[in-house]
Amino acid sequence: MSARIPDIVKHRVSEKAKKTLDIVAKFVEEECIPADPVVDAQIGEGSARWESHPPIIEELKAKAKQLGLWNMFLPKGHYKESPGYTNLEYGLMAEWLGRSKVASEATNCAAPDTGNMEVLAKYGNEAQKAQWLKPLMEGEIRSAFLMTEPDVASSDATNIQLSIKKEGNEYVLNGSKWWSSGAGDPRCKIYIVMGKSDPNNKDPYKQQSVILVPANTKGITIHRMLSVYGYDDAPHGHGHISFNNVRVPASNLVLGEGRGFEIIQGRLGPGRIHHAMRSIGAAEHALEWMLMRINDPKKTPFGKQLREHGVVLEWVAKSRIEIDAARLIVLNAAVKMDDLGPKATLKEIAQAKVLVPQTALAVIDRAVQAFGGAGVSQDTPLANSWALIRTLRLADGPDEVHLQQMGRNENKRGKEVSQKILWQKEKTEQLLKQNNLKRFQPGSNIKSRL
Amino acid sequence: MSARIPDIVKHRVSEKAKKTLDIVAKFVEEECIPADPVVDAQIGEGSARWESHPPIIEELKAKAKQLGLWNMFLPKGHYKESPGYTNLEYGLMAEWLGRSKVASEATNCAAPDTGNMEVLAKYGNEAQKAQWLKPLMEGEIRSAFLMTEPDVASSDATNIQLSIKKEGNEYVLNGSKWWSSGAGDPRCKIYIVMGKSDPNNKDPYKQQSVILVPANTKGITIHRMLSVYGYDDAPHGHGHISFNNVRVPASNLVLGEGRGFEIIQGRLGPGRIHHAMRSIGAAEHALEWMLMRINDPKKTPFGKQLREHGVVLEWVAKSRIEIDAARLIVLNAAVKMDDLGPKATLKEIAQAKVLVPQTALAVIDRAVQAFGGAGVSQDTPLANSWALIRTLRLADGPDEVHLQQMGRNENKRGKEVSQKILWQKEKTEQLLKQNNLKRFQPGSNIKSRL
Amino acid sequence: MSARIPDIVKHRVSEKAKKTLDIVAKFVEEECIPADPVVDAQIGEGSARWESHPPIIEELKAKAKQLGLWNMFLPKGHYKESPGYTNLEYGLMAEWLGRSKVASEATNCAAPDTGNMEVLAKYGNEAQKAQWLKPLMEGEIRSAFLMTEPDVASSDATNIQLSIKKEGNEYVLNGSKWWSSGAGDPRCKIYIVMGKSDPNNKDPYKQQSVILVPANTKGITIHRMLSVYGYDDAPHGHGHISFNNVRVPASNLVLGEGRGFEIIQGRLGPGRIHHAMRSIGAAEHALEWMLMRINDPKKTPFGKQLREHGVVLEWVAKSRIEIDAARLIVLNAAVKMDDLGPKATLKEIAQAKVLVPQTALAVIDRAVQAFGGAGVSQDTPLANSWALIRTLRLADGPDEVHLQQMGRNENKRGKEVSQKILWQKEKTEQLLKQNNLKRFQPGSNIKSRL
Amino acid sequence: MSARIPDIVKHRVSEKAKKTLDIVAKFVEEECIPADPVVDAQIGEGSARWESHPPIIEELKAKAKQLGLWNMFLPKGHYKESPGYTNLEYGLMAEWLGRSKVASEATNCAAPDTGNMEVLAKYGNEAQKAQWLKPLMEGEIRSAFLMTEPDVASSDATNIQLSIKKEGNEYVLNGSKWWSSGAGDPRCKIYIVMGKSDPNNKDPYKQQSVILVPANTKGITIHRMLSVYGYDDAPHGHGHISFNNVRVPASNLVLGEGRGFEIIQGRLGPGRIHHAMRSIGAAEHALEWMLMRINDPKKTPFGKQLREHGVVLEWVAKSRIEIDAARLIVLNAAVKMDDLGPKATLKEIAQAKVLVPQTALAVIDRAVQAFGGAGVSQDTPLANSWALIRTLRLADGPDEVHLQQMGRNENKRGKEVSQKILWQKEKTEQLLKQNNLKRFQPGSNIKSRL
Repeated sequence: MSARIPDIVKHRVSEKAKKTLDIVAKFVEEECIPADPVVDAQIGEGSARWESHPPIIEELKAKAKQLGLWNMFLPKGHYKESPGYTNLEYGLMAEWLGRSKVASEATNCAAPDTGNMEVLAKYGNEAQKAQWLKPLMEGEIRSAFLMTEPDVASSDATNIQLSIKKEGNEYVLNGSKWWSSGAGDPRCKIYIVMGKSDPNNKDPYKQQSVILVPANTKGITIHRMLSVYGYDDAPHGHGHISFNNVRVPASNLVLGEGRGFEIIQGRLGPGRIHHAMRSIGAAEHALEWMLMRINDPKKTPFGKQLREHGVVLEWVAKSRIEIDAARLIVLNAAVKMDDLGPKATLKEIAQAKVLVPQTALAVIDRAVQAFGGAGVSQDTPLANSWALIRTLRLADGPDEVHLQQMGRNENKRGKEVSQKILWQKEKTEQLLKQNNLKRFQPGSNIKSRL
Repeated sequence: MSARIPDIVKHRVSEKAKKTLDIVAKFVEEECIPADPVVDAQIGEGSARWESHPPIIEELKAKAKQLGLWNMFLPKGHYKESPGYTNLEYGLMAEWLGRSKVASEATNCAAPDTGNMEVLAKYGNEAQKAQWLKPLMEGEIRSAFLMTEPDVASSDATNIQLSIKKEGNEYVLNGSKWWSSGAGDPRCKIYIVMGKSDPNNKDPYKQQSVILVPANTKGITIHRMLSVYGYDDAPHGHGHISFNNVRVPASNLVLGEGRGFEIIQGRLGPGRIHHAMRSIGAAEHALEWMLMRINDPKKTPFGKQLREHGVVLEWVAKSRIEIDAARLIVLNAAVKMDDLGPKATLKEIAQAKVLVPQTALAVIDRAVQAFGGAGVSQDTPLANSWALIRTLRLADGPDEVHLQQMGRNENKRGKEVSQKILWQKEKTEQLLKQNNLKRFQPGSNIKSRL
Repeated sequence: MSARIPDIVKHRVSEKAKKTLDIVAKFVEEECIPADPVVDAQIGEGSARWESHPPIIEELKAKAKQLGLWNMFLPKGHYKESPGYTNLEYGLMAEWLGRSKVASEATNCAAPDTGNMEVLAKYGNEAQKAQWLKPLMEGEIRSAFLMTEPDVASSDATNIQLSIKKEGNEYVLNGSKWWSSGAGDPRCKIYIVMGKSDPNNKDPYKQQSVILVPANTKGITIHRMLSVYGYDDAPHGHGHISFNNVRVPASNLVLGEGRGFEIIQGRLGPGRIHHAMRSIGAAEHALEWMLMRINDPKKTPFGKQLREHGVVLEWVAKSRIEIDAARLIVLNAAVKMDDLGPKATLKEIAQAKVLVPQTALAVIDRAVQAFGGAGVSQDTPLANSWALIRTLRLADGPDEVHLQQMGRNENKRGKEVSQKILWQKEKTEQLLKQNNLKRFQPGSNIKSRL
Repeated sequence: MSARIPDIVKHRVSEKAKKTLDIVAKFVEEECIPADPVVDAQIGEGSARWESHPPIIEELKAKAKQLGLWNMFLPKGHYKESPGYTNLEYGLMAEWLGRSKVASEATNCAAPDTGNMEVLAKYGNEAQKAQWLKPLMEGEIRSAFLMTEPDVASSDATNIQLSIKKEGNEYVLNGSKWWSSGAGDPRCKIYIVMGKSDPNNKDPYKQQSVILVPANTKGITIHRMLSVYGYDDAPHGHGHISFNNVRVPASNLVLGEGRGFEIIQGRLGPGRIHHAMRSIGAAEHALEWMLMRINDPKKTPFGKQLREHGVVLEWVAKSRIEIDAARLIVLNAAVKMDDLGPKATLKEIAQAKVLVPQTALAVIDRAVQAFGGAGVSQDTPLANSWALIRTLRLADGPDEVHLQQMGRNENKRGKEVSQKILWQKEKTEQLLKQNNLKRFQPGSNIKSRL
C-alpha cells in the first residue's frame, strides 16, 4: 500500500496512484487472497479442470471494475485506453497483485494478456483491435502467446522453426509450440503466434513474423499441458500445441512480414517489470506467512518459539534486505522506462529479470523451511508460489543468457577503462619521479645471494 | 557399479557385494528406470490412484528376487534374515536404487518398510514378527510409520501428543498424524505408531510408546494425502490420518511402555544412510541427464552447444566435486556404523543427513536450469526428484535442528581447546622471555603525542 | 560522475551537485588515484611511518579547496558550515572518493573526522567548536574516536568500561581502548572518548559520557597499532591506547553527563552511509581493474583472452547487478535521511551497513581471482581494498548483531500479519461454505482401509 | 592425532604411522604453535627480515629429528630415503603440520623443498643428488621453484618464456620469474628453474626444460618480494627475480632437454595433497580458536555468550561438516595415489585442489567474524592464515582452470550417457506399448477449441 512505497520513489507517485494502490492492496488482501483456494476448488478435478471457468473470478472482476481497478498495466501516455498510470505506479500495484494467484486476472492485468494487448494496441490495425483488443480489454476473452518451441534451443529466438507461408490470400502455419501459457483456458480465444515467414532471409532478425490465429482454427491440436513441478496450473496451463496446415486470412498478420522480432522485443520490457514486481509481492507474501509461523504459539520445538531459534530471525532480516534491494532494482528500471522508454532501459530490465526470481526463490524457500512439512504441501501457498517463480529463471531466456549478454555489454567499457588505468599508472610514475621517490618493495635490498 | 566405488573404500567391499552391486546397477538401468514412467501410467488418474497396484512393480519384484536382489538393506550380522551385506555395501547399492523411483520397492528396500522391518526384527516379539515381519520381508504387504503430528512442532519428538491409553487388555489410541508416508497404498496393512502412553512421566524421553496398528482397524480415518510441490506421490502418498478411539490388543505394543524413544532412535540411523545414498544416486542421475542435454546436437543457442557456453562445464565440475564429497561423508558414516554401531555414529549420520540433500538439490537444480522448460516439466525426472529430496531437508527434523545439535556437540570441546590455546599463549610468552624477545608491534614506538 | 547517477534519483540531484560530482570524479580519477602510490612511498618504512606527513596530501588538499571540494559531507540545512549538499548528493560524491585511498582526506571528508566534526557541530559548545571544530573543518588537524575496548564484547556498547570520574573541576579517565582509528597520525590532536561516568545508573543507556581529550594529555599511552590482515594503515592506524589517570578540565565534557549514548547514536547514521558509498566506489574501482585484466592482450591462457573464458563475463554481470542493487539500498537510505532524518532511517541504514560490505567484498574477490597472483599482491589496489572493507563487517557491530536487530524489528509485524492471515483463512472457509464447495484433497476418498 | 583419523581410513594406517601421528600432533601443539610468534619476533624488522635465520627454527628441527619427525613427506616405496609412510599416512600428519606456521619447516616437510626434493630424487642424476638433494634432505639448505612469470598468463604453462639456450658447455638463462616462493630466505641456495629450451618445437609440451641454478649465480637479480594481503612472508618470501645472461654448466639440466613438462607434472600431485591437508589443519586450528572465542566468559554481548547467539553454533556445525567432507576428498586422493599412482589420480587431486582452499577460507572467515576486530589483527593467527590460503585458489592454476578441465573430463561421458538415456526412453515406449498404456498428460483431452 502507499505507506510502504520506498522513500526513493515516493514523490514520483501521484496522489491518484497512491489512492489506487491502497485500493489494490485492500482488494488483494480482503477479496483475492481469500478467494484463491475457492478458485482452486471451483476448477475441479481431472479433465474438467481444462473446461473450467471458476465463477468467483467473474465476481472478482465485477468488484474490481467497480473499484476502478482495471487494465492498470496499460502505460500512461502511450495508449488512449490507459487508466493513466506510469510504469512505476503500476509496478507498485503489480507487487500487490503478486500476492494472490487470482488478483492479476481479476483486474485484467494477467499475463500473457497484458503483453498481447500491448502488441495489439501498439502494432495491430483497426480491424485487429476491434476484433481482439476490445474483448481482451473488457476481460471477455483470454489469449496466448506462442513462441517457444520444443525441439530447438529457444533461448535463442532465431532458432524458431514454425513455418508461416503465404498461399494466395492466406497464411499457412506448420510446426509445434510449447509453453504456450494460457492455452488451456476455454476462454482463450486467440493465439498470437511467432513463426518464420522468410527463413532464408540473410538477416536472421528479419525472418520472423507474428500472426493472429483464432484458437478454434482447424488444424490446431492441443497435445497436452506441461506441468511445473507437480502443478498443472489449470485452467490456464502451459500448452504443447501443433499446427498442421493451419490457415488464416492474410489480414491476420501483425505489422508486416519480417517484423516479428521487432514486435516481440517491444513486448518483453514491460512484461518483465510486471513479472518482477509480482514476484516481489509473492516474496513479501511468503515472508508474512513465515512471520506467522515463527510466532505460532503452538509451535515450540525445544521449549522456544521458532523466532527464538538460532538462525530464524537472521533469515527474516536477510529476506527483508534482499527483497528491498531487488525491489529497488525493478523500480529503477520502471522509472527509467517512464523517463526514457524501454529501449534505453534494456540493462535495467535485464537486471530485474535475473535478480528478482533468484531473490524471491530464496525468500520463499526459507519460508518453506520454517514451516516444515506444511511448507511443501497444499496447506500453504509457498510450494506453488516457488514452483511458479522457478520458471521465471527460464522463461524468455535462462538467467545465463541474460548474464552473458550483460557481461558483454559491461565489457564494452573494457578498452576505455584499460586506457584510463594505464594513464593513471603512468601519471603515478611521473609523480614518483618528480618527487624523487621509489615505491617501497619488500626485499628490494636483496640484490642477489652472491 | 563396482568400477565406480571410491578408492577409499574399495578394499572394504567384498567380492560378493561387488558382484551384487553390478547386478543392482544393471537391473536399475535396464529394468527399473525404463519402468518408472510405466508405473506412473499404471497408477492412473483421480481417486483410482490410491487404489492402484501397478502390475509392473510385481514383475520387477519377481525379476529382482530371481537376481538375488532382495532385502539387501538388512545389515549383516544383526539379523539372521540378512542377505549379508554391510551398511557400506548396501549403501553403495542404495545409490543405484536412488536413480529410479521404483527400484527400492522392486528390491524390497523401500522406506518406510525398511525401517519398520528393522524395528520389528530388532524389537518385535515372535508373534509380531510372524504376523508382520514375515510378509513385509516377502514383499507381500507394505507399512507406514506414524510419528509426525500436524498441530505441534514435531521436529522435537517430545511434543508428540497422540494418546495411547491402556484399557483392560487393549490400548486405545486418540489423536492425529500426518506425513504418514506410504499410508496411501492399498497394500499398506500395518501402521507402526508412536504416541504417548505416559504423558506425565518426569522423564520426557520415557513418555512415548510404539504400537502396531493394523491399517484396517476401526476408528482410523485417512483424511487426505499431502502433496509435495504438486506431486501426490500416489499410491504411496503422505497421509493425514486421525485416530478416534482406535483399539488394539495390548500385545501389539512393541518392546514395552515408555520405550518409544529408544525404538525410534534405533530406527533412524540406517534409514538416514539409505536416504542419503539414494539422494546421491538421484544427483548422479540428474548429472547424467544434464550431460545428455548439454551435448544435444539439436540444442545450439547462439550457434554453440550448451557445453560450450559460459558456465555450463563449471556446473558439471562443481556437481562432480560436491557429489563426491557428499558421498564420502555418507560412506564414512556407513563404515563407522559397520565398525562401531549406530550409537557411536550419530555425528557422522547427522552430517550426511544435512549435507546430502542440500548437495543433491543444488545438482538437480543445475540440471533443471540446463534443460530450460523441460526441466521443470513431466518430460524429465528432474522436477519430481527435486521435490522429493526437498522434503529430506525437513523430514526427521529440519536441517537447522540437526545443525544446532551438531554445533552444541562440537562446542563441548570448547573448554578443552580454550585451555590448550591459553597454555600455548603462555608458553609463547615464556619463550619470548627466555629469548629476551619482544613481539613486533607496529607503532609501539609512539609512546604518546606529548 | 553525473551521467551515471541512477535514474531513480536523478531528478533529486541539484544542478550544482551534478556539477560538483563531475568535478569530484575528475579530481579523483586524475589527481587522487595516481597519487595513492605516492602517498605510500612518502609514508616510508619502519617507525617513520607513524611520524609521517606525506606532502602530496597537502598538495591535493590545496587543489581540492581550489576546486570547491571541501567538507561536502556536512549535510545541508543542519549546519551553517555546510557547502549545501544533501545526504543523497554527498553520497554520490562519496562513491567517487571511495575509489582512491587519499581522496577522502584530500577533500576533508575522511573518517573519523567527519563523524567527529558532526558531533562537535551538533553537540559541542562554542568554546569546544572554536578550539577543535574550526581546525578540523580547515583540515589543519585530525582526530580519533575512542569507543571500542579490547577486553569486552564491544558490539554491545553497554559493556564499555573506561571510567570517567569527576574530581573537582576535572574528569579523570582510566581504561583501555583499541581500534582507535586515526590515532597513529601525528596530526591527530584530539580524541573524542566514550566512557562510563555513572556505571551504576539503572538505565544502561545513561551510564555513558563523551569527553574531549587532547592527544598530548599526560597519562595516555599508545601501545601499538593493530594491523588489518598484513596492513598497518600508517600513518592513520588503528590504535591500542591506555588511559592512566588522564585528567582533563570538566569543560571538555560534551553535552552533559550520561548523554554519551545519545551522541554516538546521532554520529553513526551518516557515517554508515559514507562508508557504504565509499565501498560502492571501491567495488566499481575493482570492477574496472577486472575489466582491464580480462581484456589484457598479453594474458591469453589456452589461446583465449580471459573475457572469453567460462565464467568470467558472468562474474562481470553479477558484479554489475550486485553493485547496482547495493547502491540503490544506500541511496534509498540517503533519500529517507534527507526527507525524514536519521532516526526514521535506522532500518534503511542498517540494510546498507550489512549489504554493502558483503557485496563489495564479493566483487573485489572476483577481481583478485581474475588477476591471479597480482591480485593478492602490492601490484593492484585490490588486496588492500578487500582488507579495509572486510573490517566494515565488524566495525560498529558485526553483521550478525545488525541482522538480529533487523529481524526483531521486522518480526514486530508478526502479530498483525498472523491475524490477517488467520482472517483470510476464515474468509476462505466462509466463501467455500457459501459456494457449497470443498477443497480438493488428494486421497480424501480413502476413508479407511477397512 | 590417531584418535581422530576418520573411520573410513583407520584400518589403512599402520601402527607405526599412528604412533608417529600422535608424536607429530604433540610436537605441533606443544612445541611449534607456541614457537610461531617467536619465529616472527626473531625475524625482526625492515631489511633485516630477509637476512634472518630465526634460531628457534633450528632448535625445533633438532627436536623433530630426535623425535623421528623428519622428511615424512617422502613417499614409501618410491625412495630409499623415505621414512616409510604412505601418502595417506603423511597426509594425516600434514594436517597437523598445517596448524602451525613453523611446523613444516621444523620437520623438513616444507614447500617448495618437498617438491624439489622429489624432483631431485626422481629425476636427478647422482651428482645432482649429492650436491643438492643431500643437504636438502638434511635440512641444511633451502630451495625455490621458479616457474610463474609476471608478463604472461602463467595458469597455462605453455606460455612460459624464460629462455634456456645452450652455448658450448653451458646453458644461458634470460627472463623473469615471480612468485618464486622461498627465494627470500638467505638459506635458499638452489633454484629449480623451468624455461624454454626449444620454443619452436611443434609439440608445445616439449619446449620446456628444467635446470638447476645456484642462487648465487651471476646475473640473477632479486627485485623484490611480493606481498600477500600485506604480509611479506619473510624470510621465505615470494620473489620477483630476473635472469640476465645467467650461465650454468650443461650438467645442471634435469633429465634432459624438452622434459620440463614431464617433470613439473610429476611434481604437482603430492604437493597438492600436502597443501590441501595443511589447509585442513589450518581450518581445524581456526575452528578451535573460534570455539575459544565463543566460550570466552568475558565476551557477553547483550548478556549472553557468543555461543548462545543466533547463528554461531550453526557456523560451528557447518564448519565441522565442510571440513570433514573436504578432508575425505583429500584422503580419497591420497589412498588412490597410494594404490594406483599420481597419474591415475588426477581427477581426485584436482577435486582436492579446488574444494579444500574454498572450504578452509570459509571456515577461517567465520572465525574472523566471531572474533571481531581481533580476528583481522595480529592478535590471532586467523587473518594471516586466511591470506596464505587465499593464494592456493590461484597457485598452480586458478580454480576456474581446474574446474573447466574437470568439466571437460566429466563431459567425456556425455555421449555414452546420452545413448543410455535414449535407450531407456525407447524401452519405456516399448513397455508402454506392450502394456497398452498411455502416459498421463494433463489436458490431453482438449483436442482443440473448435
